Amino acid sequence: MAIVMYDLAGADPALRFSPYCWRIRMALAHKGLPVETVPWRFTDTDAIAFSGQGRVPVIRDGETVVSDSWAIACYLEEHYPDRPSLLGGATGQAHARFINAWADAVLMAGAARLVVRDILDAIDPKDVAYFRSSREQRFGTTLEAVQEDGRANRLAAFRESLTPARLVLRAQPWLGGDSPSYADHILFGTLQWPRCISRFEVLAADDPIVAWQQRALDLYGGLGRSAVRA
Amino acid sequence: MAIVMYDLAGADPALRFSPYCWRIRMALAHKGLPVETVPWRFTDTDAIAFSGQGRVPVIRDGETVVSDSWAIACYLEEHYPDRPSLLGGATGQAHARFINAWADAVLMAGAARLVVRDILDAIDPKDVAYFRSSREQRFGTTLEAVQEDGRANRLAAFRESLTPARLVLRAQPWLGGDSPSYADHILFGTLQWPRCISRFEVLAADDPIVAWQQRALDLYGGLGRSAVRA
Repeated sequence: MAIVMYDLAGADPALRFSPYCWRIRMALAHKGLPVETVPWRFTDTDAIAFSGQGRVPVIRDGETVVSDSWAIACYLEEHYPDRPSLLGGATGQAHARFINAWADAVLMAGAARLVVRDILDAIDPKDVAYFRSSREQRFGTTLEAVQEDGRANRLAAFRESLTPARLVLRAQPWLGGDSPSYADHILFGTLQWPRCISRFEVLAADDPIVAWQQRALDLYGGLGRSAVRA
Repeated sequence: MAIVMYDLAGADPALRFSPYCWRIRMALAHKGLPVETVPWRFTDTDAIAFSGQGRVPVIRDGETVVSDSWAIACYLEEHYPDRPSLLGGATGQAHARFINAWADAVLMAGAARLVVRDILDAIDPKDVAYFRSSREQRFGTTLEAVQEDGRANRLAAFRESLTPARLVLRAQPWLGGDSPSYADHILFGTLQWPRCISRFEVLAADDPIVAWQQRALDLYGGLGRSAVRA
């Protein structure tokens, strides 16, 4: 029986844009595990109440329910040890947690300011009021003001914040080394978020990260490349 | 025969403050490898000309010479596989390279602005002119101006830049997981630099990174704690 994953969707149910859900879509494909995704909207809290919390991704694997992308990656690694490794053992996992924390604390915050207003145009109408009010409370201003300021004043800093990944990819083809690991899926999923939800180019065309992203888009039969974009 | 390591020293030859040399001192202790350090000053380029470049750390292990802290860590891991692991296998090593790049690109740059003028007071008199001119060229202003601006305007951003490490250490005792890895030595060595060269506190006393640093200072018989401070 395929693993079921609740996956953030837009007004178009085929538009899947959550950075955390993309990390897990890639992780499942890496493990060669079939998945059946269920489109989910921000306000569908009842639909995932069984998970004991209100955010996606949530997976149901037989009787087991796991939420939170990092916990899901660790679950998949532990429960499917004979499949290709995502984390490369205890130390690889410990170090990947740093990359996960960096993506969440640095990249997500920077990318949000570049595309957050565009999200409103793509999400389900029933989510719009919730999304605007919750995010505007967080930013302390309108989404229009956040995005305008982001694109005008914070694009260079966002690109600069990717320097550690750029330095690594100068020395090795993947963050995981010779082949992709969950570290690549973390960065890929994070960048798949602006890529799917907006037409704004968050990276310069000649950025080495773009060359890596192009290779990652081709992984697993072009899973990322076939994604619907807003 | 002990490994010989050329180690950046101050006017007081016992003052050792290079962030990169500290990473390797910790790595050698982690591996249980005896080391004989040779005090080295910025302008002693002839003394390490045999390494084909002009920076420390440089190690000589029998006939083998290795420079660059990351290359030395990888060398130690490869050549002493029966000793406690620094990197935890190929994927752990690939992921640690990200942490190394982050420390170099983000932390080092931030910490430099907080203590760079203090370095002048501690280094060997013969290094002072070189250090001032090379660093002032890099910063485009005087070391006094850099440090004054750093402490007045950039301390909060430096502390904020440690967020990924803070998030990891909320979930596990070491960056390496249940026990220290080279990832810990990277961060420890980076922080040992301002700690040894300056009395300015770059971290808030209640920062969880300080609690981790205190534990790291006790590793290997208190190697880090016994360091001479300026």
